[in-house]
Amino acid sequence: MDESFEKEKALVLMSGGQDSTTCLFWAMRNFKKVSAITFYYAQKHEKETQIARHICAKLNIENKLVDMSFIKDVVISNLFEGSGDVYQPHPLNAEVPSSFVPYRNLLFLTIAAGWAGTVGAKHLVTGVCETDYSGYADCRDVFIKSAQATLNLATDFKESNIVIHTPLMRLTKAEEFRLAEELGCLEFVLKETLTCYNGVETMNDFGKGCGQCPSCGLRKKGFDEYRENRVIV
Amino acid sequence: MDESFEKEKALVLMSGGQDSTTCLFWAMRNFKKVSAITFYYAQKHEKETQIARHICAKLNIENKLVDMSFIKDVVISNLFEGSGDVYQPHPLNAEVPSSFVPYRNLLFLTIAAGWAGTVGAKHLVTGVCETDYSGYADCRDVFIKSAQATLNLATDFKESNIVIHTPLMRLTKAEEFRLAEELGCLEFVLKETLTCYNGVETMNDFGKGCGQCPSCGLRKKGFDEYRENRVIV
Repeated sequence: MDESFEKEKALVLMSGGQDSTTCLFWAMRNFKKVSAITFYYAQKHEKETQIARHICAKLNIENKLVDMSFIKDVVISNLFEGSGDVYQPHPLNAEVPSSFVPYRNLLFLTIAAGWAGTVGAKHLVTGVCETDYSGYADCRDVFIKSAQATLNLATDFKESNIVIHTPLMRLTKAEEFRLAEELGCLEFVLKETLTCYNGVETMNDFGKGCGQCPSCGLRKKGFDEYRENRVIV
Repeated sequence: MDESFEKEKALVLMSGGQDSTTCLFWAMRNFKKVSAITFYYAQKHEKETQIARHICAKLNIENKLVDMSFIKDVVISNLFEGSGDVYQPHPLNAEVPSSFVPYRNLLFLTIAAGWAGTVGAKHLVTGVCETDYSGYADCRDVFIKSAQATLNLATDFKESNIVIHTPLMRLTKAEEFRLAEELGCLEFVLKETLTCYNGVETMNDFGKGCGQCPSCGLRKKGFDEYRENRVIV
């Protein structure tokens, strides 16, 4: 990590899940000042916005909430409240799960960049990860790099060019638990975060959620792996 | 123009101004089917959304209206209703006019790409122009090309990759009037469109608007030039 970042402000894209919460702790360690932004977009697991706010309040982090529920009237996804089964293929591409919300991450990053300019931050931190990206193209490193270039070309505010940080990009879920341990937030992540697509809270349940959805599956597998390897690491 | 486009669908980003209306006629000439998308974002010249809808209704073009008024709570601009003087420098960069809305065009293009996927269009048409771009970085060709790459990396929907068309990119205002003449829509453009920042309608007034704002200034200068050169072209 570039030491100069210690004097600067970062804005964390905060969903209330394991990934973004781990990123929040990572940012708190690496930047002088950290704030957060959370998006409501009529997602099935709407509870995550409440949990994001709850986590930020607990950590004394300012959190900007942006209502982007207009997305559900624009793009097709089964992640929206009242829509179909998230396990089916996406109607626009059979290779992609129907939980995919086209352009979601680009919208989030763009709005976050706008808010970062308003509060004087130039660093964005997001928990996207391409190791187990589940067919979500907008979690890949190549997308994030391209988005950063596009955001900076959109404003030409040279001295305050946006930098996007993705501390989880190449980690497995097990390695992410390990990072949380190193950051001293493993117990917090396990007890306070919500990752489940079906909105089943994991409070005091060590990473289980509903145990059925793809997100819970990934989390459980990762936690088991992390525990198995813990002694020998 | 690639002849294969004649069999395809295009979505025009429609503000109700001269530029987007000329683009709408350009798209109607070049594509099999054309629809439009209009954004309400608490802009001072809110009348433009009504005019955009009026123009589309007149031309029998479907128009999707998207409310993006959340932008005014996220980014800084004097283009929003109730904000300060649009002639001042922008607080985030003194070289940019305060009417600049950071990331506006990226948000518009991203939402338009989302809607294009939903209605089965892969071509977006936007009236941005770098010839007289007024310090708006997101009107430059380099930004548009980068945005197209980012949008397609965001979805990886290979067969339906988005193509962004910018028929006005390198035209002067006078050349744009000339294009409108070629497309047979000059009178329509002069009588029906609204370009003025202050929302003064140009109906039956051949491109004058309030006559004071930068946008009216550009339009008037361009129209005068077009008229002067008309006989000799």
